[in-house]
Amino acid sequence: MIIVMKAGAPAAELEAVEERVRQAGLKPHTICGEERQVVALVGDERKFDPDFFAACPGVEKVMRVLAPYKLASRLSTVAPRSVSVGGVEIGGDEIVTIAGPCTVESKEQIMLTARAVKAAGAKLLRGGAFKPRTNPYSFQGLMEEGLQLLAAAREETGLPVVTEVMTPADVELVASYADMLQVGTRNMHNFLLLKELGAQPKPVLLKRGMSATLEEWLLAAEYIMSSGNHGVVLCERGIRTFEKHGRNTLALSAVAAAKLETPLPVVVDPSHGTGRSELVPAMSKASVAAGADGLILEVCPDPATAMLDGQQSLSIPEFEQLFRELRPVAESVGRTM
Amino acid sequence: MIIVMKAGAPAAELEAVEERVRQAGLKPHTICGEERQVVALVGDERKFDPDFFAACPGVEKVMRVLAPYKLASRLSTVAPRSVSVGGVEIGGDEIVTIAGPCTVESKEQIMLTARAVKAAGAKLLRGGAFKPRTNPYSFQGLMEEGLQLLAAAREETGLPVVTEVMTPADVELVASYADMLQVGTRNMHNFLLLKELGAQPKPVLLKRGMSATLEEWLLAAEYIMSSGNHGVVLCERGIRTFEKHGRNTLALSAVAAAKLETPLPVVVDPSHGTGRSELVPAMSKASVAAGADGLILEVCPDPATAMLDGQQSLSIPEFEQLFRELRPVAESVGRTM
Amino acid sequence: MIIVMKAGAPAAELEAVEERVRQAGLKPHTICGEERQVVALVGDERKFDPDFFAACPGVEKVMRVLAPYKLASRLSTVAPRSVSVGGVEIGGDEIVTIAGPCTVESKEQIMLTARAVKAAGAKLLRGGAFKPRTNPYSFQGLMEEGLQLLAAAREETGLPVVTEVMTPADVELVASYADMLQVGTRNMHNFLLLKELGAQPKPVLLKRGMSATLEEWLLAAEYIMSSGNHGVVLCERGIRTFEKHGRNTLALSAVAAAKLETPLPVVVDPSHGTGRSELVPAMSKASVAAGADGLILEVCPDPATAMLDGQQSLSIPEFEQLFRELRPVAESVGRTM
Amino acid sequence: MIIVMKAGAPAAELEAVEERVRQAGLKPHTICGEERQVVALVGDERKFDPDFFAACPGVEKVMRVLAPYKLASRLSTVAPRSVSVGGVEIGGDEIVTIAGPCTVESKEQIMLTARAVKAAGAKLLRGGAFKPRTNPYSFQGLMEEGLQLLAAAREETGLPVVTEVMTPADVELVASYADMLQVGTRNMHNFLLLKELGAQPKPVLLKRGMSATLEEWLLAAEYIMSSGNHGVVLCERGIRTFEKHGRNTLALSAVAAAKLETPLPVVVDPSHGTGRSELVPAMSKASVAAGADGLILEVCPDPATAMLDGQQSLSIPEFEQLFRELRPVAESVGRTM
Repeated sequence: MIIVMKAGAPAAELEAVEERVRQAGLKPHTICGEERQVVALVGDERKFDPDFFAACPGVEKVMRVLAPYKLASRLSTVAPRSVSVGGVEIGGDEIVTIAGPCTVESKEQIMLTARAVKAAGAKLLRGGAFKPRTNPYSFQGLMEEGLQLLAAAREETGLPVVTEVMTPADVELVASYADMLQVGTRNMHNFLLLKELGAQPKPVLLKRGMSATLEEWLLAAEYIMSSGNHGVVLCERGIRTFEKHGRNTLALSAVAAAKLETPLPVVVDPSHGTGRSELVPAMSKASVAAGADGLILEVCPDPATAMLDGQQSLSIPEFEQLFRELRPVAESVGRTM
Repeated sequence: MIIVMKAGAPAAELEAVEERVRQAGLKPHTICGEERQVVALVGDERKFDPDFFAACPGVEKVMRVLAPYKLASRLSTVAPRSVSVGGVEIGGDEIVTIAGPCTVESKEQIMLTARAVKAAGAKLLRGGAFKPRTNPYSFQGLMEEGLQLLAAAREETGLPVVTEVMTPADVELVASYADMLQVGTRNMHNFLLLKELGAQPKPVLLKRGMSATLEEWLLAAEYIMSSGNHGVVLCERGIRTFEKHGRNTLALSAVAAAKLETPLPVVVDPSHGTGRSELVPAMSKASVAAGADGLILEVCPDPATAMLDGQQSLSIPEFEQLFRELRPVAESVGRTM
Repeated sequence: MIIVMKAGAPAAELEAVEERVRQAGLKPHTICGEERQVVALVGDERKFDPDFFAACPGVEKVMRVLAPYKLASRLSTVAPRSVSVGGVEIGGDEIVTIAGPCTVESKEQIMLTARAVKAAGAKLLRGGAFKPRTNPYSFQGLMEEGLQLLAAAREETGLPVVTEVMTPADVELVASYADMLQVGTRNMHNFLLLKELGAQPKPVLLKRGMSATLEEWLLAAEYIMSSGNHGVVLCERGIRTFEKHGRNTLALSAVAAAKLETPLPVVVDPSHGTGRSELVPAMSKASVAAGADGLILEVCPDPATAMLDGQQSLSIPEFEQLFRELRPVAESVGRTM
Repeated sequence: MIIVMKAGAPAAELEAVEERVRQAGLKPHTICGEERQVVALVGDERKFDPDFFAACPGVEKVMRVLAPYKLASRLSTVAPRSVSVGGVEIGGDEIVTIAGPCTVESKEQIMLTARAVKAAGAKLLRGGAFKPRTNPYSFQGLMEEGLQLLAAAREETGLPVVTEVMTPADVELVASYADMLQVGTRNMHNFLLLKELGAQPKPVLLKRGMSATLEEWLLAAEYIMSSGNHGVVLCERGIRTFEKHGRNTLALSAVAAAKLETPLPVVVDPSHGTGRSELVPAMSKASVAAGADGLILEVCPDPATAMLDGQQSLSIPEFEQLFRELRPVAESVGRTM
């Protein structure tokens, strides 16, 4: 960490800062510039937030040198390069496609979709049973019945199941049905949920918060990993900006930047990332070309009559066509599909 | 709701849209423009999200006419104009100040602060016992011991207590100590927490999500209110933007806009809203002038040695001076303090 | 356009709105909903901004049905699908690469770079002579001398030249040297510059404003086109968001969305779009996969000693390698390179 | 400036960085941390952008210690605390109100408005003659005729005139009529315009770019000041964010932060800052309470029939009432009005 003193800060303030640094178990190294003094901290700064030093009198600003996460970092010895989900490896040579409806609505719907996406090439089945809805009057999912239907679809098709869990108290229930537990964008900062997921063995699909920085996203992964579960797959799903042409701004440079920061696999959700099914094919290809390890796509038998998110869902023929078009893109960047 | 059809959409697509509208229990009213057709929906559109219609073939876009919230709206018959917290009214003529440390660190710290803020004019005591921390290695609060210390401070000073609850399972515990339960910015979209808070009687301080629109904020209030608890106070605490001169961008126009949309009281948190204690006095005055019903301020005996958020905390003398300066501002807009 | 009246707006206010609509040469079509009245406007709404009606008493909000641009729209009869720049077609089957240094610094630098990027496969040469710099004390380019050096590099290599023009008064000078004139992100809203560029025949590379919506970007194109010059190529170069891992957030979904809205060619600038050379290869591939018609890339002989933007520039060997890796990606989406 | 080397960067890379620092006329001071090395630069770093060093091999990131502006900084010896505009002081004890229509539409309109705002207490007259319009088909102002009408209104009322100039070539013309020249939000990065304004003596009202940081805003002021004209007044007018309840997000904390960074006066434009006239009174009061030195407000005789921006304009009675309500707010923070 680098502490920049205000211009003209008196010696006593500098000494107090140096003393607080020493009390924190770090070594202050002070440099006298022409206009102001700067204190460089030597030691492991990770357990301190910059504001631990920022409130000392005479301090102008504090800048971090090291990233605050360890287990999720590129230098980590425990972060996996690939994560196995019910036998399917995410992060290997193969681009993995997770597909299924936004929400499980009925047995017919999930069975039909599961069979179709499997036939088209999907390796994992997605579907919402517990749905976080902005509007309290909207349909909130079939809950445990939805989990049972997902399990039935897995039994028939063999596709492992990915589904969202919204609160710590539901982790055990959802984990008893699902092969991978998803943390939604609205829960990336739900730290008690992250800890609970860290204390159980099923792999976790960690969506990026809609206004979370890369550092915060990796700190959320660190929460899960530091609680004992290293099986984390990151998922970019679009961020909130001033743009109006879609529901979110899909930030693929965050995928490329994440790949430089962490060994953890990264997948992309172009359905939520754009909110418009006509943008999904182009952005799916772009995601693969940007280095993503997989895609999570909303697919349903009849988007026009879906209860939720029909606008961003692919129909089954659209998904089949996209899958065919994606394979050469994957191969062009040295991956299989 | 207004459904705009694509230019040249065939009659069959228009008819299918009209049919889906009728199935939803609404009445379609179609207008033929020069370039395209538009379907206006007559009836209560609130229980439908625009995307319920947006995926029909031939639809270009769907625009909402009515706000999706009812109980929280300006036309509401149940939304209170003021909320009583342990006998202190938020939303009346008096501007209410909620003050205290970011985090309860020790008995000495909370007692000293409680006495000082009460003497200066604060009406409610704040202090964190359960702390949502971005960094898993940071101090996460004293938890129940912190709640006990807050209760002890209330016993001595008479100040009702406001503190955060992070997860549904903790609501009962926190409510057994606190007079008002705070939903933090990271939990505004934690819908199960909102429902649980709606099912108990203590008033709720609902912080705006750091990237939530005004509509989403009021829908979060609607979650609590539609679960049975109408005692909601909104709290603006800054949003995430490209700005770099502070931790957040304090969006006071959202306070003025909220006042046009809802009768619910609105308070402002300039401490988190700016992240810099030297900006807190100016933004506190601006909040009151903008029409806020109260302020929530971080105050601690020695910001330089606080474990958390010292950078944005006022010292006790700074708080005393600010309180003196705020009174004439409150009076200038017809309020007391 | 759709005008939504306030709940309970009196009949006289509705009539005044209908009258203003008629005065504007449009036909009002009023629908009485259960809670409020809505006026749909029939006719060409494009020449009116929504706020032309929004200030009438009783109006709650005004929503646009049609996009406000015509010549740049997907239904345009004059917008070209491809633009020729000194004989090089942007928007055809071939992905076009524009490469060169951020700034022309010397004859040696530009000649060396021009030869190298041509040999690697670039079709156009870029280089800044007039540089918009945020800091007034920074190097601002060689100006006309820079243009002369670019022309010399074209003479030797045959590569047509793309360079920025910053102000209307310089258009004639820059156009006398360059084959394509670039509008930088800080000038997308410089409407007098856009008009001047519309009044001359050289094609224009129109960078998106760093906080411009897709609609505003296409309106900027409309400025140039409605002044007589239809040769516009759009360029996505990253937007300003809360993200911190790069200089900007490269918004590739805007490329895909633009392709749905306009026939105009779209290229991407991953150098400015990320600000970090190590992200440029992945984002170049993603741009091509997303449907871009070309790339504009900063390449210089020695990024470490460049006067400007070395951090985001590729070295010549890095550019050569990227070009080799891009060809299969282009082919995977049915393009050549 | 602080240069952070990558973990494990070899000694040769460190030496090359130190050499580039020395070549730049600065002194490198290297600190060996546990995980990586850090080079602190001693000397005047202002003329270098961080990316001057960031592209050296082995560099992870470069962090600035000093703000890059000098003349506009709080330590400046030339930045004025108040600026005189035709005899009216902005930045003194008195809060100055600049009022008038968005656009000069006719002699009657501007005369009527000028008389009314003067009678109500305004000290300066605003009105657009050259209008930057996003839509090329929209009314773009009366141009020189508008300037003549503004001058006529000044002659009758004695109110000095503030109006926008859009391009360097128009500076002389606009300055021949106006008492203060306004740089609009879309031109804050129009560096050639800033330089031209710096080379003439009339004071400048510098609106913040809609996505400009505080640093960039002050660098724009530095452009004008370093060209010779120190008479700069800053104007906050709202920034672009994800918020939807108004046209922009009025960022009053930027006003308070600017006051800590620079002695230059700061005024606020709540009309554009919110885009909704019903929010203007609350945000005007908040601006004054936040420490602004003045307000610029859109006022017109009949907002419902204004050609532009009626939605955000106050009527004359609304302005009169606001002015009466503002005076006690100004007094509550020790100012007059």
